[in-house]
Amino acid sequence: MTHHAINLAEKLGAFSENWTPKIVARMNDLHFKVVKVCGEFVWHSHPETDEAFLVLDGEMRIDFRDGNVSIGAGELFVVPKGVEHKPVAERECRVLLVEPAGTVNTGDAGGTLTAPADDWI
Amino acid sequence: MTHHAINLAEKLGAFSENWTPKIVARMNDLHFKVVKVCGEFVWHSHPETDEAFLVLDGEMRIDFRDGNVSIGAGELFVVPKGVEHKPVAERECRVLLVEPAGTVNTGDAGGTLTAPADDWI
Repeated sequence: MTHHAINLAEKLGAFSENWTPKIVARMNDLHFKVVKVCGEFVWHSHPETDEAFLVLDGEMRIDFRDGNVSIGAGELFVVPKGVEHKPVAERECRVLLVEPAGTVNTGDAGGTLTAPADDWI
Repeated sequence: MTHHAINLAEKLGAFSENWTPKIVARMNDLHFKVVKVCGEFVWHSHPETDEAFLVLDGEMRIDFRDGNVSIGAGELFVVPKGVEHKPVAERECRVLLVEPAGTVNTGDAGGTLTAPADDWI
């Protein structure tokens, strides 16, 4: 039986909207999600969980109340649970997120950028 | 305050041995590990957990008792818990692993290729 790996670029090529994470795989109670980010997101935090960002293509910044971090292609950053953050990207940036199943993109903030947390692609 | 992202290529450039996963980040109870694979590993399974492989550079194969999967750069595959598998790579391949802290590379098999499960880089 031949199994198939998940091609992340192919998954990212299958949708165009920004800030809408799409689940590509499950591992235990976690989801791996691909997302396109461009512009400014909202300030929010995830009170229950850390959140991992792995940039696949492009560059993004995460602003914190006390500073920021730039994340380029091939770089990983883990936002600790409960820490307020705001993702920002000047140009479209493609990211792999790792977080518990059910994690909502806007965390405790809600608002119009809130996307479904169960959207597989 | 400036935070720093983790550059995976830089971490992979800091060691040369194969089959020795090095932890680069923690997210909740998980570790992100970089590993160089080349040649054949041992048949093993992880009875307690799934295990995610994201190939960063090169190509690897995972053999199963009933088939196999090829994983190239930018591709992800999750080995379900309890499933026997044997990683193989014809040439050096660089991989990001995501698995619970404490997961041992040889799982239930043990043997000479067993590496420490708490080796940060």
